[in-house]
Amino acid sequence: MTQNDLQVFSQIESEVRSYCRGFPTVFTKAKGHKMWDEAGKEYIDFFSGAGALNYGHNDEHMQEKLIDYIKDNGITHSLDMASTAKRTFLEKFKQVILEPRDLDYKIMFPGPTGTNTVESALKLARKVTGRTNVISFTNGFHGMTIGSLSVTGNETKRKGAGIPLHHAVTMPYDNFVGEERDTLDYLESFLENSGSGVELPAAMILETVQGEGGLNTARMEWLKKVDEICKQYGILLIIDDVQAGVGRTGTFFSFEPAGIKPDIVCLSKSLSGYGLPFAITLFRPELDIWSPGEHNGTFRGFNHAFVTATAALDYWEDPKFEKSIQDKAGIVEDFLRGLTQKYPALEGEVYGRGLMIGIKSAQEGLSAQIAEEAFNRGLIMETAGMDDEVFKLFPPINIAVEDLKEGLNILEDSIKSLVKKPVSNQ
Amino acid sequence: MTQNDLQVFSQIESEVRSYCRGFPTVFTKAKGHKMWDEAGKEYIDFFSGAGALNYGHNDEHMQEKLIDYIKDNGITHSLDMASTAKRTFLEKFKQVILEPRDLDYKIMFPGPTGTNTVESALKLARKVTGRTNVISFTNGFHGMTIGSLSVTGNETKRKGAGIPLHHAVTMPYDNFVGEERDTLDYLESFLENSGSGVELPAAMILETVQGEGGLNTARMEWLKKVDEICKQYGILLIIDDVQAGVGRTGTFFSFEPAGIKPDIVCLSKSLSGYGLPFAITLFRPELDIWSPGEHNGTFRGFNHAFVTATAALDYWEDPKFEKSIQDKAGIVEDFLRGLTQKYPALEGEVYGRGLMIGIKSAQEGLSAQIAEEAFNRGLIMETAGMDDEVFKLFPPINIAVEDLKEGLNILEDSIKSLVKKPVSNQ
Amino acid sequence: MTQNDLQVFSQIESEVRSYCRGFPTVFTKAKGHKMWDEAGKEYIDFFSGAGALNYGHNDEHMQEKLIDYIKDNGITHSLDMASTAKRTFLEKFKQVILEPRDLDYKIMFPGPTGTNTVESALKLARKVTGRTNVISFTNGFHGMTIGSLSVTGNETKRKGAGIPLHHAVTMPYDNFVGEERDTLDYLESFLENSGSGVELPAAMILETVQGEGGLNTARMEWLKKVDEICKQYGILLIIDDVQAGVGRTGTFFSFEPAGIKPDIVCLSKSLSGYGLPFAITLFRPELDIWSPGEHNGTFRGFNHAFVTATAALDYWEDPKFEKSIQDKAGIVEDFLRGLTQKYPALEGEVYGRGLMIGIKSAQEGLSAQIAEEAFNRGLIMETAGMDDEVFKLFPPINIAVEDLKEGLNILEDSIKSLVKKPVSNQ
Amino acid sequence: MTQNDLQVFSQIESEVRSYCRGFPTVFTKAKGHKMWDEAGKEYIDFFSGAGALNYGHNDEHMQEKLIDYIKDNGITHSLDMASTAKRTFLEKFKQVILEPRDLDYKIMFPGPTGTNTVESALKLARKVTGRTNVISFTNGFHGMTIGSLSVTGNETKRKGAGIPLHHAVTMPYDNFVGEERDTLDYLESFLENSGSGVELPAAMILETVQGEGGLNTARMEWLKKVDEICKQYGILLIIDDVQAGVGRTGTFFSFEPAGIKPDIVCLSKSLSGYGLPFAITLFRPELDIWSPGEHNGTFRGFNHAFVTATAALDYWEDPKFEKSIQDKAGIVEDFLRGLTQKYPALEGEVYGRGLMIGIKSAQEGLSAQIAEEAFNRGLIMETAGMDDEVFKLFPPINIAVEDLKEGLNILEDSIKSLVKKPVSNQ
Repeated sequence: MTQNDLQVFSQIESEVRSYCRGFPTVFTKAKGHKMWDEAGKEYIDFFSGAGALNYGHNDEHMQEKLIDYIKDNGITHSLDMASTAKRTFLEKFKQVILEPRDLDYKIMFPGPTGTNTVESALKLARKVTGRTNVISFTNGFHGMTIGSLSVTGNETKRKGAGIPLHHAVTMPYDNFVGEERDTLDYLESFLENSGSGVELPAAMILETVQGEGGLNTARMEWLKKVDEICKQYGILLIIDDVQAGVGRTGTFFSFEPAGIKPDIVCLSKSLSGYGLPFAITLFRPELDIWSPGEHNGTFRGFNHAFVTATAALDYWEDPKFEKSIQDKAGIVEDFLRGLTQKYPALEGEVYGRGLMIGIKSAQEGLSAQIAEEAFNRGLIMETAGMDDEVFKLFPPINIAVEDLKEGLNILEDSIKSLVKKPVSNQ
Repeated sequence: MTQNDLQVFSQIESEVRSYCRGFPTVFTKAKGHKMWDEAGKEYIDFFSGAGALNYGHNDEHMQEKLIDYIKDNGITHSLDMASTAKRTFLEKFKQVILEPRDLDYKIMFPGPTGTNTVESALKLARKVTGRTNVISFTNGFHGMTIGSLSVTGNETKRKGAGIPLHHAVTMPYDNFVGEERDTLDYLESFLENSGSGVELPAAMILETVQGEGGLNTARMEWLKKVDEICKQYGILLIIDDVQAGVGRTGTFFSFEPAGIKPDIVCLSKSLSGYGLPFAITLFRPELDIWSPGEHNGTFRGFNHAFVTATAALDYWEDPKFEKSIQDKAGIVEDFLRGLTQKYPALEGEVYGRGLMIGIKSAQEGLSAQIAEEAFNRGLIMETAGMDDEVFKLFPPINIAVEDLKEGLNILEDSIKSLVKKPVSNQ
Repeated sequence: MTQNDLQVFSQIESEVRSYCRGFPTVFTKAKGHKMWDEAGKEYIDFFSGAGALNYGHNDEHMQEKLIDYIKDNGITHSLDMASTAKRTFLEKFKQVILEPRDLDYKIMFPGPTGTNTVESALKLARKVTGRTNVISFTNGFHGMTIGSLSVTGNETKRKGAGIPLHHAVTMPYDNFVGEERDTLDYLESFLENSGSGVELPAAMILETVQGEGGLNTARMEWLKKVDEICKQYGILLIIDDVQAGVGRTGTFFSFEPAGIKPDIVCLSKSLSGYGLPFAITLFRPELDIWSPGEHNGTFRGFNHAFVTATAALDYWEDPKFEKSIQDKAGIVEDFLRGLTQKYPALEGEVYGRGLMIGIKSAQEGLSAQIAEEAFNRGLIMETAGMDDEVFKLFPPINIAVEDLKEGLNILEDSIKSLVKKPVSNQ
Repeated sequence: MTQNDLQVFSQIESEVRSYCRGFPTVFTKAKGHKMWDEAGKEYIDFFSGAGALNYGHNDEHMQEKLIDYIKDNGITHSLDMASTAKRTFLEKFKQVILEPRDLDYKIMFPGPTGTNTVESALKLARKVTGRTNVISFTNGFHGMTIGSLSVTGNETKRKGAGIPLHHAVTMPYDNFVGEERDTLDYLESFLENSGSGVELPAAMILETVQGEGGLNTARMEWLKKVDEICKQYGILLIIDDVQAGVGRTGTFFSFEPAGIKPDIVCLSKSLSGYGLPFAITLFRPELDIWSPGEHNGTFRGFNHAFVTATAALDYWEDPKFEKSIQDKAGIVEDFLRGLTQKYPALEGEVYGRGLMIGIKSAQEGLSAQIAEEAFNRGLIMETAGMDDEVFKLFPPINIAVEDLKEGLNILEDSIKSLVKKPVSNQ
């Protein structure tokens, strides 16, 4: 086997594989914000597993806890039986995350992935309200199973269902029809008017920043208004915080700055802290009308994830942690704004919030070229949006500032090499 | 915190939790076929994580490989990027499992759970055929997300969807309408007759033994006939081997004795060998018309699972391994048949195949009582069927014969204590 | 314009036109059991407007009443306002039809066609039970609008919907899987078993004789059993008597010989007696939970139809009328059985009941040839079944015996000319 | 039976009856713009059968033709066989209506009601495009069968379906979100953006004036823009002209002033001219890909309607006919505008177009009171809108000006008696 040989993948793995095409090498080791391929080439990782590695790779503290647990024959797989590791997680999550934020939520283990938590949230909302319809938003992304896909906007993903998708109505996200239009006026008109053809929904589901949909970002006042409308009509508000949660935007939950308390919250991706499959669904105790086992699944009790997730919460016990993320977000945002000014040929606009941020380039194909160039130069970052028009930066939230800057410099070099001249030379 | 304190769970965890009610203790460690709770009580595990722990807990060989990998900062989470651990798994799975069985399949990583692989299989079948309908079978169980739930029979689970479930037609499984009736006659009548109201489906999906549905077992000739009907009508055959696969019935795939080669196979549960979330979807290369990324998901590239799954395949390199499972299955089956004769008050009938076997008792509630009694006596086993009328034995497939017998003895003691007298005394 | 010129139709009318292809002439006048085309050719009509002209064409008595009403400026169109003509119909229908049969039904005017009454019946059943699913039967035909099409078996018609059809489960009609099988065993298994994937339905809908589906006929004991199952499970029984009702099978309602009282009955076609668009939905008073206007439609109050329908009821005041239909049915059935024996080359079997009867020929295409030959010889009759394998006789139920025999003779002549020799010559 | 006795209706007819509650009397005769009840009370009819009696009641010319046809034993019911009466209608409709308007349409007979033509239009659009989705508009009304109901906005009617309604997306009609917003900007955003969650639809369906939805009226430039968007995206445009067509707005088709040629047009209600059930579906010849009989129905060939519909077309041969309708529409509009000024307590605004016009009153319940008072004073008119906030005037389009004014005077008297004082007195 030659190093970085991709032949096995093209021979045996399905054509559905995707990221290995954009990052055509074979990775072998990773630590913190760095990854290495088989040839020993080092990469700075500003991709963070699409938001699943907010604490970087193989975090030392979690690694120790995990190895100790395994060595000790700690129970690995326990379905939804009680285990010591699970109890510890429950207690610590309540104490470190929920109580300080004055959030009184029950915790459900719906299966270990984002789409599991979304499906469980939709089921619960329908069960509680007795209604079938759910309002989703343009460019929302919630998962690949049929329930989650029904509330996802992306046309290609939807077609992949192979069946018409029902029980969902898509409404315009903030700024969908030009900035001067209040898209919630439109939504409210549909709810108010009993001839609108839109039934009162069980729930609205949305991301506060649309990670896959192109880093569209809802304003806090828009979120507040959504929350008010939901309360007014008795609609449950589901925040899908799978990608934007766990610190990615600068607070543990992405909706905290809006001052709202959603009825249901979906968490996954970085929740385990270590890249292990894990998800939870949070909801107001009054909504907890599930029958035992009404929603189940084999991997609801993956104790390795309980162990690392508990260790990850140590970060959040430090009051300075959130501030440090926000500071780094400020650095990145300033840097990106600078780029758009320095390189007008980018035709770039900064999108996103916190450390979930990028540039949308009006130059067709340019964002993808920049990502490719950056990869060649040892920086891994992803594109987003329907035409990959946005390149996005997801550095680890615990990255050191100097490491962050090193990555940003590679980014600028990549842009420079493609766009050639900064504005001052033109 | 008192040992075995379940209060935290009832306070914080959702009411949806289920197994912790039937096994009301807090587990902490596990090794091989044994588990221990916080109070130090030891249990023999004939439950095996509902089929997710076919090799028992914390298998020594896999444990070593996993710890080494973690210590070495092997990449943990890689989405669907190429990694060394993934390549090794692909190669070994092909060499140890597929090639010796003359199965030419592409391998897809659909997300790490059973419902992910089922949803991907349904999508692919619909995409390939351009048809929307899927035929499922009575008492089938395929998962909790909307696509999988649509092909699941269980009424309670279906109601949990909160929406009507479409695009699926349920047909009678083998022996559904009495043993003398050939249920495939019905199915064929519906396909043949163009006035039947049943459209030509994209696929049929079924389990060869219905793990959740009550250990109903399809005869090999029934499976062959299903395969023939599928070929005749151009319908894709999907075998959901999530629970019955990976050796549970005595061969790696449960369908091997029927001599059929399904178009699509779903695997998960014991695939990682170690209880780690992992699933793959296998299909004929001609069906691999996926567009890159058409189906995706965050935890498709969980390298810990690749590592342990690869190690688990070592078992299958030994030609005596399958035989040893079948031998133990014979022991259990004989023992269970013996019980039904010895304890006629059980009104029992043996159900299932291989080490996926149990007794259906016509005495209402008795099977649940037996499982409860066994738990108190230190044996963990589950009930199945719509009214929990079956108690089922899922011992590890690599259990030593003497350990197996120890568990069986506890089972008999439990029955004896409830049913009181064996037949010879009556 | 040449007589019988069909050019205008092929130029202006949509390709969807159908019967004018099988009967390629231009009809102009009709009286009783006779029709004439523009060239003056006379036909005996054993088609009766597919069951919409049970009393023949332009019945003298109804014609007089209708002309008088029109001349007198009787209100023609009244939506669902009260009118004298409507009140008279309501009273007489109750007195002549419902009361003597001990049927206590409310009467709804759902719009003037068969599919309107079926759609209203399905809506009401769903509203009353709060369930969405409906059980329909193989080869059932209930109409072309989406609700009715969902419970219709015919594949071509269903595909015409252009969308997947939901909320219906098709079960085997009597004799669907060979005569020795009790199809209701199958149905009951699905209802009994809560893992069957078939939800408890709002209703079952069926025809006692399947007019479009090939004259399949349910036995009276099968109908009784269906009724019992419905009662046992709290499922509403809808009899679609659109084609088989209004005397076609020898009694006013086709289900009378079974001694059952369906929860909901759909009537249309011959209800007006004169071929005027008209339909009613009958249901038990307890089911009448409609809100005013919840189902509406422009042509619910077509007073011409009230007038002729009232006049048509005069037939049913004569106690000998039903007997006379049954006698003629006996004549036709004997004649058809005779044909199957006399002409073994027909490979014929008699199908149907009452004056809704025909022969299914196992000779591919023969039934259609016989219908074509009969048309050329001046006898109009239709084929039915998925492959037009049945030719069916629908003479007017008030036809004189000698006229009936005249038509039967043309039929035999047609067969003779195609099959050549009766059995005695072979 | 006492005159005007409504007891029979409340005893025997279903609770679904509706108009007889608002107009609580028993009608018996009608001529032109007048109706009489059993007690001999005379009414002026500004309701016109909800648009089904545009030429008034029992039009003399049509009446003669109809009586002659019936007397002559003209064929009454012919399914879709060819008949002389049908051919005459086809030729005359082409010559008098289609050719002068440069419209090249095939004509389909889909069954005799509005919902039949809508269902056929939706089927055809889906068949032609191979797409399932249809865009409908807020407050649209298209019929009560499931297909038509899916594109209807009214919440109460939709709930009546008893099942979730699919395959339709509702977009804002002109002026839905305030007058300053261009609702087509929203619609276009959804079509343009491939992440919007709205699939490319088969068709858009709309009324140019929403008869049931509250007389909302689309501007001609809005209709033109809709037409352009449809052409741009390859979406079929269906105009449901069931209520607004046949002269109601001042031209035969309501869309004529917009200068557009819809792909599919639905006509019914006043098409027969005499209140007889009748409907046609018109479409571009290229779309005529129906298979014979793919859509069928018993009452597609109701020859009485062909006869009166042909006679009704005589009106349209007179070039002054359209002008006379428009003149009367001007009189009514001026009169209504005058009322809103004279009676500010009405808080009224004129809605509608042509002789499909009314006043929306912001005073809750007032419109219904006015309609009731008018009825007592001998004027029949309907309310519309979700809360019956609009009273609407649908006088016959061939009414004499003095008769029209007589009705308007009763209307003003009714208002005066309720609102008490005109503005000059305040």
